[in-house]
Amino acid sequence: MTVTEMVRTYPADLGEVDRDAVIRCIEQCMICAQACTACADACMSEPDDEIPMLRKCIRSNEDCADICATTERILSRHTGYDANITRAILDACAVVCRSCGDECERHASRHEHCRICAEACRQCENACRELLGALG
Amino acid sequence: MTVTEMVRTYPADLGEVDRDAVIRCIEQCMICAQACTACADACMSEPDDEIPMLRKCIRSNEDCADICATTERILSRHTGYDANITRAILDACAVVCRSCGDECERHASRHEHCRICAEACRQCENACRELLGALG
Amino acid sequence: MTVTEMVRTYPADLGEVDRDAVIRCIEQCMICAQACTACADACMSEPDDEIPMLRKCIRSNEDCADICATTERILSRHTGYDANITRAILDACAVVCRSCGDECERHASRHEHCRICAEACRQCENACRELLGALG
Amino acid sequence: MTVTEMVRTYPADLGEVDRDAVIRCIEQCMICAQACTACADACMSEPDDEIPMLRKCIRSNEDCADICATTERILSRHTGYDANITRAILDACAVVCRSCGDECERHASRHEHCRICAEACRQCENACRELLGALG
Repeated sequence: MTVTEMVRTYPADLGEVDRDAVIRCIEQCMICAQACTACADACMSEPDDEIPMLRKCIRSNEDCADICATTERILSRHTGYDANITRAILDACAVVCRSCGDECERHASRHEHCRICAEACRQCENACRELLGALG
Repeated sequence: MTVTEMVRTYPADLGEVDRDAVIRCIEQCMICAQACTACADACMSEPDDEIPMLRKCIRSNEDCADICATTERILSRHTGYDANITRAILDACAVVCRSCGDECERHASRHEHCRICAEACRQCENACRELLGALG
Repeated sequence: MTVTEMVRTYPADLGEVDRDAVIRCIEQCMICAQACTACADACMSEPDDEIPMLRKCIRSNEDCADICATTERILSRHTGYDANITRAILDACAVVCRSCGDECERHASRHEHCRICAEACRQCENACRELLGALG
Repeated sequence: MTVTEMVRTYPADLGEVDRDAVIRCIEQCMICAQACTACADACMSEPDDEIPMLRKCIRSNEDCADICATTERILSRHTGYDANITRAILDACAVVCRSCGDECERHASRHEHCRICAEACRQCENACRELLGALG
C-alpha cells in the first residue's frame, strides 16, 4: 500500500513504464529478499547433519536477497530513467530467482521455510519477466 | 504475510524474543526503506528551485533506507542471536527514523511523497522502540 | 590486500574461475561503489543552480553504487557457484558502470568528484568485462 | 586512494569532522564488509563436521558485513550531516565488529579465513571508536 502510494506520488512523468507492473515488481522483490535472508538463516539452524546438503541453498538465498534488494531500489527510482540498466538488473533478478527457486524447491518437502521461499522466488521471477515484457 | 510465515517456520527456538514484535519491526523496516528510497528520488524530481531546500531530506532518506534495510536483515536472522547487536542496530534505526521523519514532515504540506514517507518513518521508529522495550 | 588474502584462503576449489580476475573485480567494485555514493552526495552539495543538471548523474551514481556492492558480494562467495548468476550480475554491473561513467564524464571538467568517479566506473566496467571474458 | 580523493573533492565544508579519521573509517568498513562476506562463505565450505560449530561465526559475519556496508555509505555522505545518526551507526558498527572479531578469533587457529577476518574486524572497530572519539 505504501509502495503504491510512493510510486503514485512521484512528481514527474514515468514515461513508457507501466506503473502497476513496477509496483508489483517492487513488492515481490521486497518479499523475496526478506524470505531469502530468513531462509538462509533457517537452513543454518537445521540439525547438524542437514546443513551440508543445504550449502548451495544458503548461497543461492544470499545472492538472491542481494539482487532482489538492489532491483527494488533501482525500480523505486524514476528520475533519469535508463532502460538499459533496468533491463539488465531485471534480467539478473529473474535469473537468480529461477536458480534460487529451483534450489529451494529441492528441499521444500523437508523444510517448510524452503517451500515458502521457493514460492516467493517464483512470484518474484514472474514479476520481473512481466515487467521486462512491458518494457519491450 | 510471507514475513510472518518465514519467522514462524524458523526451525529452532527464538529464545527471549517476542515473535510478533520482530515480525512487525521487519515489516515496518521493509516499508520504510522503500519509502525512503522513493522519497529521495521524488525529491530529486521536484522543480529546479525546490531541490536545494530538499538537500537534507534527500540525505536523511538515503541514510534511513540503508539503516532500515540492514535492520530488516539482522532481525530476519535468529541463529546465534546476539542481543547487543540487535539493540545497537535498533537504536540506530530509531534515531535515523526520528530524524528522517522530522525532516520529511517539514515538507509534508508541499510534497505528498514526504508526507507518506514521514508516516512510514514514524511507524518504523515505533516498531523499533517497541521491540527494544520487549528485549529489555 | 585483505581481499586477496580472503580469496586465497577459501578452503575449497574455485573451479574454472580465474582467482586474479575475481580479486581485481571485487576490488574495483568496492572502489566504484564508494566513489558513486560519494559522488552522488558531492553533486547534492554543489551550488543551487548546478544541481538540476546533475539529476541524472546522481541517479546513475546511486544505481551504480547498489549494483557494484551486490556484485562485490556475489563475487566474494564461491560455495555453490552458479555461472549463470555471476554472468548476469557482471553484465548488469558493466552496463551500469558504462552508463554512470558516461554521465559522470559529462561533468568531469566542472566537477573533480565526477572526473574521479568516471575513472572508477571505467576501471570497474573493464574488470567486469575481463572477468566475463575469463568465464567464457 | 580513490576514497581519499573522493572525500577531499567534496565541494562544501565538512564542519567539525576530521577528514582523515573519516577516510580511515570508510576504508576499514569496506575491507571488513568484504572480509566478513568472504569469511561466511568460506566457513560454509569447510568440511561437513566443522560447519555446525561455525554457525555463530557465519551469522556474525553476515550482520557485520551488512552494518559495515551501511556505515561506509553513511560516512561517504557529508551533505546535511547529522551527528546523532553518525554516532548511532558508528556505535552499532563498533559493537558488531567487536562481537564478530571475538567469534572469528575463536576459530583463528583452525581457519586462516577466520584469522584474517578477525583482524579486519579489530581494525574496523578501532577506526569506528577513533572516529567516535573525534566526533566528541
